Amino acid sequence: MVQVVVDNPIGMHVVLDLYECDPQILDDIERIEEILTEAAEVANATVIDKRFHKFSPQGVSGVVVVSESHIAIHTWPEHGYAAVDVYTCGDHTMPLKASEYIIRELKCKRPTLVKLDRGLLFKG
Amino acid sequence: MVQVVVDNPIGMHVVLDLYECDPQILDDIERIEEILTEAAEVANATVIDKRFHKFSPQGVSGVVVVSESHIAIHTWPEHGYAAVDVYTCGDHTMPLKASEYIIRELKCKRPTLVKLDRGLLFKG
Repeated sequence: MVQVVVDNPIGMHVVLDLYECDPQILDDIERIEEILTEAAEVANATVIDKRFHKFSPQGVSGVVVVSESHIAIHTWPEHGYAAVDVYTCGDHTMPLKASEYIIRELKCKRPTLVKLDRGLLFKG
Repeated sequence: MVQVVVDNPIGMHVVLDLYECDPQILDDIERIEEILTEAAEVANATVIDKRFHKFSPQGVSGVVVVSESHIAIHTWPEHGYAAVDVYTCGDHTMPLKASEYIIRELKCKRPTLVKLDRGLLFKG
């Protein structure tokens, strides 16, 4: 019998749909950038680049590229909603810790979270 | 009786784990940038920024920020594997078309795809 073994996933992707956040924070590009940058640190990831944009009349998008993948946010202050992705690779990273940090800092009262294993390789 | 209606999702996020891609393409930062930029066009999204990085000894990460969210890629040429996210908002965008384009251009022989509704609001 051939043994089939699924190896550890290459990455963990935490998909956060965050409802009932503080709309003022969601529309504050400087604060959003601070939160995502700090989140990368909480995840123990290494920031290599970041880009943030403010939309008119409202909303912010931002991506922090880390050596271990990326953290991204898109906000809709008018709905109190933020879509966040915390996607990191490597045993040293803690994407759930970063997710908890982001939920708290956005003052989110109704977070939803899905964890996805990314990159499942077969051994043997 | 109170009627509860789930509105259309704010965004559609296509999560692609692409196995058995062409390793040479996965390690070619210029080609990867071309493919993702073209994918944004295929999706009918508007590029507002893009960042690409080459890792040593191998691998590429890239994010194309579009007005309608983002398209991201992280590649592991040594595994023939690429993690791709095509996440767009608005009825005018076609994230699945962009996904098909990326699968073809990476010469992927074993694509996996999950569609996620992002941002479900309740009406009424």
